[in-house]
Amino acid sequence: MRTVYVNGDYLPETEAKVSVFDRGFLMADGVYEVTSVLGGKLVDFDGHAVRLERSLSELDMACPISKEDLLDVHRELVRLNDLDEGLIYLQITRGAPKDRDFAFPDPKTTPCTVVLFSQSKPGLSDSPAAKTGIKVISIDDIRWGRRDIKTVQLLYPSMGKMMAKKAGADDAWMVQDGFVTEGTSNNAYIVKGNKIITRVLSTDILHGITRAAVLRFAREAQMEVEERNFTIDEAKEADEAFITSASTFVMPVVEIDGVALGDGTPGRVAPRLREIYLDESRKAAV
Amino acid sequence: MRTVYVNGDYLPETEAKVSVFDRGFLMADGVYEVTSVLGGKLVDFDGHAVRLERSLSELDMACPISKEDLLDVHRELVRLNDLDEGLIYLQITRGAPKDRDFAFPDPKTTPCTVVLFSQSKPGLSDSPAAKTGIKVISIDDIRWGRRDIKTVQLLYPSMGKMMAKKAGADDAWMVQDGFVTEGTSNNAYIVKGNKIITRVLSTDILHGITRAAVLRFAREAQMEVEERNFTIDEAKEADEAFITSASTFVMPVVEIDGVALGDGTPGRVAPRLREIYLDESRKAAV
Repeated sequence: MRTVYVNGDYLPETEAKVSVFDRGFLMADGVYEVTSVLGGKLVDFDGHAVRLERSLSELDMACPISKEDLLDVHRELVRLNDLDEGLIYLQITRGAPKDRDFAFPDPKTTPCTVVLFSQSKPGLSDSPAAKTGIKVISIDDIRWGRRDIKTVQLLYPSMGKMMAKKAGADDAWMVQDGFVTEGTSNNAYIVKGNKIITRVLSTDILHGITRAAVLRFAREAQMEVEERNFTIDEAKEADEAFITSASTFVMPVVEIDGVALGDGTPGRVAPRLREIYLDESRKAAV
Repeated sequence: MRTVYVNGDYLPETEAKVSVFDRGFLMADGVYEVTSVLGGKLVDFDGHAVRLERSLSELDMACPISKEDLLDVHRELVRLNDLDEGLIYLQITRGAPKDRDFAFPDPKTTPCTVVLFSQSKPGLSDSPAAKTGIKVISIDDIRWGRRDIKTVQLLYPSMGKMMAKKAGADDAWMVQDGFVTEGTSNNAYIVKGNKIITRVLSTDILHGITRAAVLRFAREAQMEVEERNFTIDEAKEADEAFITSASTFVMPVVEIDGVALGDGTPGRVAPRLREIYLDESRKAAV
């Protein structure tokens, strides 16, 4: 049985609970991070910790837990759960006040809630899907306007994943004003010739930690990167496409709305970037 | 100490907990209702039960709890907590699967989570704010596109309430494409002459149970009702304004963005509607 961290305690997963008055449960007033684990070590922990701090700050959410303490909890969960490949999920909410109220509680009397758990995913880095590529459909992006804050308001991305499933696809790319924003839980890219094209950072999309690393590695490998909006039609005519996230690393996309990209196989750029990303991540993992 | 209902059990509020894997906590994958209680009886229970069913259905969320059983739980909480005036809060989520996943769990193995609790609010029907009226500010409406589904994605409304507080106001009206959508947890109305103007129902706003009742009573009292969009500037020049919700009934608005409406007091229409609504609600409460 998994051991889960809840507010200072390491508990069997069946006993890991929060109050029904927790604002994460009642109001989606919480933020999260997912850090991947390769060979028992954390990938880009610093990047996730910095983004977490930004999410908390954007929401005026006080949570006086240090980066060092968070790192300790991550490592302890890896150790307690014998994690080799997988993920550490972290969620912080504005805590559980005595009663439900739209107004924020005073952080002096209502401490934040901190929950972390591991997800063991043996073979994550050697995923068969990375060899065949995945299929996506396009759906309207009707999420709220601050997707740069990594909140737990994940109902629509979750609905999007189900729409994809129903359509026989693996994931959905969201489209706003004609342009692709991102996948349901990942950033979206197309490749034209040797150029990697991905939407520029704004409040419209998540500022992916994996995105930042992959674009850095791409530039270091002399690949051309263009950060600009692209339409779903442009994507369907691209040579390649792919997504990035902490849990999928770099994953080729071979079909969009039933249209095969190129010859319908992963192409050259995405598999190469995946290889570089995994190599470099293993080296830098802590 | 309050007694709270969690999945079939009546528990002391400090023991009312849900799993950290509950999709309400992890993904805001849940819906809710708030029913007011006057003289120990439930106001418009049927309306809330019907809307709850619609919310569940729009999200493909299976929760085989009958209206009769829900009514029993509501009444039992009123009894156990000696509730005279106040609210019963109800939340249903897609349950707690064994692990976090964007895809919906199978409802056969993952039953929905059902939580209800009471909030005692003595004097709710005789609120001093109803005599002086409240002040609102306007803020951008950046919520997701399906506000007709009463989900627990309440982070932005909660932020809106804090923006209002900071500005020395009581609540915020949200504005989209120049037009007022609704308040943070209520429907919004203006009055010009004898005409009550409120936004037409769509996916842009909550289909208020109190809204439906108040508009019906207004029409029965020979008041003119016009359902159409209005701008925040039109609102500032209105003779009166008010909000409706299950917890505020009908509440006059006397100031918008620092601009006093009329002579800055509640006017004639809103107080009259409040009186009718409270009278009729007491009569019909169950």
